[in-house]
Amino acid sequence: MSGRQISIEPLTREAFAPFGTVIDKAAVAPRPMNAGKARRFHDLAPVAVADPDGQVVIGAVEADPYALPLRLNLVERHPLGAQAFIPLNDAPFLVVVCPDENGAPGRPQAFVTGLGQGVCYAIGTWHGVLTPLDKRQDFWVIDRSGPGVNLEEHLFGEPWIIAFA
Amino acid sequence: MSGRQISIEPLTREAFAPFGTVIDKAAVAPRPMNAGKARRFHDLAPVAVADPDGQVVIGAVEADPYALPLRLNLVERHPLGAQAFIPLNDAPFLVVVCPDENGAPGRPQAFVTGLGQGVCYAIGTWHGVLTPLDKRQDFWVIDRSGPGVNLEEHLFGEPWIIAFA
Repeated sequence: MSGRQISIEPLTREAFAPFGTVIDKAAVAPRPMNAGKARRFHDLAPVAVADPDGQVVIGAVEADPYALPLRLNLVERHPLGAQAFIPLNDAPFLVVVCPDENGAPGRPQAFVTGLGQGVCYAIGTWHGVLTPLDKRQDFWVIDRSGPGVNLEEHLFGEPWIIAFA
Repeated sequence: MSGRQISIEPLTREAFAPFGTVIDKAAVAPRPMNAGKARRFHDLAPVAVADPDGQVVIGAVEADPYALPLRLNLVERHPLGAQAFIPLNDAPFLVVVCPDENGAPGRPQAFVTGLGQGVCYAIGTWHGVLTPLDKRQDFWVIDRSGPGVNLEEHLFGEPWIIAFA
């Protein structure tokens, strides 16, 4: 099974760029606003919508934790909109994404978030479900809502085994 | 000056409905997702965009606190998109909005948020700047980005005085 093993790497903007955007205040220089009474970290992540009938909505998710090594059987993607997850606390969570290869997910990459980081999956990016590592974690979700089919799922024939190296 | 005094009320979805949406997980029944491993609170607030050239972005703001009674000199509005603020902690903050009266803000209404509440100002809603009450407060901001003028400000001839009753 060694060919099916995936090592978890730290999440960085550069490594994640093919899949979307890391939401990370610490990576941005703020600009003053409100007569100097506030500082804005602008454009941490765009939340793109592919179709004129969709719009962005704010939601929330409570997610239960997973144990490592993780057996990854399923990934999904959203063809009509980007999808952002922002944790409500500073606990790390696992981010699993796959390159697209002719409409199917290729070999997964696994990242663990740093303090305060969230992610925004670009439109159509294959990704795993929300994966807290230690205990239940709550997230804000900013994504597309609207008519049409915005979910594709892919079941792997055999699971990928994901763990720290 | 008593005619210029505004009493702060608790923020509720009903009272705020003419101005936008209260973002409040506690007001929504979650739905199961991810094979029962997560619960989603969907559509807490739409983030509408008025023009095809705009898109929604995620940003953040650090805002300094204000003392009460607040002297409200200025409100602003965004004609091209809704604007949502979600606090990173549970501290209350002040939400000041005004009805529009022929293109100018009418008498303000002032609300104080409850535990975990955020707000989304509807497109074109007159509102005050971010107003934490006790200490610096950080927020996620979800709003429109794009070309065009998306800010109107209104300076009041004399300030409104905002305080708890």
